[in-house]
Amino acid sequence: MDHAYWTSLAQTAERGCFDAVFLADGQSQGDITHGPLWNLEPLTLLSAMAAGTERIGLVCTIPASFYEPFPAARMLASLDHISGGRAGWNVVTSMFDAEAQNYGMDTLPVHAERYGRAAEFVQAALALWDSWDADAIRADPAGAYADMSKIRPVHHEGRHFRMAGPLNVPRSPQGRPVLFQAGASEDGRNLAARHAEGVYSVAADLSSAQQYYRDVKARAARAGRDPGQVVVMPGLVSYIGSTAKEAAAARAELDGLVPVAQSLAQLGKFIQQDCISWELDAPVPRLAPASEFSGPAGRYATILRLVETERPTVRQLLDRLAAGGGHCTMAGTPEQVADGIQHWFENGGADGFNLMPPVLPGSLEEFVDRVVPLLQRRGLFRNRYTTRTLRGHLLGVDA
Amino acid sequence: MDHAYWTSLAQTAERGCFDAVFLADGQSQGDITHGPLWNLEPLTLLSAMAAGTERIGLVCTIPASFYEPFPAARMLASLDHISGGRAGWNVVTSMFDAEAQNYGMDTLPVHAERYGRAAEFVQAALALWDSWDADAIRADPAGAYADMSKIRPVHHEGRHFRMAGPLNVPRSPQGRPVLFQAGASEDGRNLAARHAEGVYSVAADLSSAQQYYRDVKARAARAGRDPGQVVVMPGLVSYIGSTAKEAAAARAELDGLVPVAQSLAQLGKFIQQDCISWELDAPVPRLAPASEFSGPAGRYATILRLVETERPTVRQLLDRLAAGGGHCTMAGTPEQVADGIQHWFENGGADGFNLMPPVLPGSLEEFVDRVVPLLQRRGLFRNRYTTRTLRGHLLGVDA
Repeated sequence: MDHAYWTSLAQTAERGCFDAVFLADGQSQGDITHGPLWNLEPLTLLSAMAAGTERIGLVCTIPASFYEPFPAARMLASLDHISGGRAGWNVVTSMFDAEAQNYGMDTLPVHAERYGRAAEFVQAALALWDSWDADAIRADPAGAYADMSKIRPVHHEGRHFRMAGPLNVPRSPQGRPVLFQAGASEDGRNLAARHAEGVYSVAADLSSAQQYYRDVKARAARAGRDPGQVVVMPGLVSYIGSTAKEAAAARAELDGLVPVAQSLAQLGKFIQQDCISWELDAPVPRLAPASEFSGPAGRYATILRLVETERPTVRQLLDRLAAGGGHCTMAGTPEQVADGIQHWFENGGADGFNLMPPVLPGSLEEFVDRVVPLLQRRGLFRNRYTTRTLRGHLLGVDA
Repeated sequence: MDHAYWTSLAQTAERGCFDAVFLADGQSQGDITHGPLWNLEPLTLLSAMAAGTERIGLVCTIPASFYEPFPAARMLASLDHISGGRAGWNVVTSMFDAEAQNYGMDTLPVHAERYGRAAEFVQAALALWDSWDADAIRADPAGAYADMSKIRPVHHEGRHFRMAGPLNVPRSPQGRPVLFQAGASEDGRNLAARHAEGVYSVAADLSSAQQYYRDVKARAARAGRDPGQVVVMPGLVSYIGSTAKEAAAARAELDGLVPVAQSLAQLGKFIQQDCISWELDAPVPRLAPASEFSGPAGRYATILRLVETERPTVRQLLDRLAAGGGHCTMAGTPEQVADGIQHWFENGGADGFNLMPPVLPGSLEEFVDRVVPLLQRRGLFRNRYTTRTLRGHLLGVDA
């Protein structure tokens, strides 16, 4: 709950020249007997972190299923002003009925409805950000403060939202804060292809990462966009040791600390069925095909793939999912981890990675101090920031 | 748009040992040809300001007419964590249809409906803040992270909101961020009397300040509260000079800079009629009695009173309303301004003041450097902070 702690993590990432720090979020409080689920609300926390950092991007999760576009667009524009052009927005459609129940509903709307709302939400936010020209404010001491011909109403009228505009905050340094998306379903991929500049993906192995990568880039091209402007970043959980054995031991030690009941409950959420009474040393029971699954598609596909290719026992599956929940996991020496990253990067699996340090601040510091210098020496990563904005870091050009 | 500027203002106020900085806000963009109406969104801006200040309270305006209690309560709790117990919440019901039009409505709900929603909003937020006991988090390395018996659902079911709870952020340093209210109508006064710990009032003269002060304190007593725990703060616009003449000249110079068309448009908003074609040197036309006026009551009462007692021309009324819009205005030497403050304070007009510096940062710096030391020497104001939280500053005891 101490914002200074989070700021110090962002400063460590900034020392490593990372593009951005990303805060996930959710709208309900589950069982936290074994550990916290969420932290401080991300718009407020990232605003405080902006004041303590200089260059690193700040990506905020905002639930399109529950917020209104007007305040969301305004808060993001404010964060972009506060940070000097470092704001990003992870558009999420939310996953759990418990979240809907904090917003006057009994259950979440169905998947297509959530994505319809999210797509309209994005359009409305973009229109609000574009309702001010960059040179609308004159602040001429002898004349006008603003040129009202450069501030236009929006008059958005859609299925989900009606909103007059204009926004009541001037155009921010990036104009449009950078849009991120993490959807793996058809609707999610299409939303990402149409609007996202950064895509967070889930892939346990290179071949599924490549599949996703190719698919999103192709959809972006079909949507008339330059696929190079859509940066795909799988989650990456890294364990670093002086030897491969040391790294494997660190991983095993940490996995062993996860209470089995909590892992089963987490698995139950991913596959949306109660598996609390599953026999740990028996094979994983047959799961419904992806086509019959109505929940979040990305994680489910990862689990299906693990079960089909590895035929694990329940306990083995839990271990595979433990820290990263099915994300790419690399354990080894700094050289081995750098090799793995280079391999994925050079073989069409990733434009970059969303690092998910299993221990904070230790795993982050290890990565910055021991892996980043190797990537820099190999010419795979910047030695210093050459751009000022998050969009600049991601795409090479400030704007 | 530079958060460092706002932080530096807060630091100046903190040097003067002020209880809090307060950011007003609105949900629509009007005509800003002659100057800005709103600044950055206050939750994000105050979070950044929290990182740059140590002791001063941070009071945020949140529109109960448009926001949902769950994210509002969470963001305020986050701000309270980020600031170490310095968050305050100014509950507003919003004034203009243009604001409603950014939230899917054509017009604002009627006055009673807005206040009904605000009252329920406050109840829901309080219930969310109370859904965590202060000692719910154990963070015991060998045992549980949280004691789930100390985190309870809310199950709020009202006319305006339905919400399961609990909040998804732990209890903040103040438990309940401090609640402020600025309503002058019957409904507004009752909401303040029931819930507010700080009340912002509008009074152009001591006698109307006393009237309001007595009324709010009596209502608080009738609501079963200690009237001493409801701090009444009229707005105060101060012009300070080395002589009274110098201060009066500073005021006249500033008033003279306000474009007449903008003053007329502002007056039109306050009295909710078009007065753009009023003859400037003719007496103010008869205004409808307060009982027939459906807009914001406080400002209207002030204007009615000015018109009845002073019988001004339109131009004279605009001058009276210019910088402070009808708030108490004191112009004079530091001693004279300190005398005025002491007089209001000792005669039941104010527990404190909401300083509205007509020029930033100059008028704030003058007040801190030249008036505050006099108030301190007279034993009317603290010499240093003795409490850590906003509630501590306001009421003398941290909690």
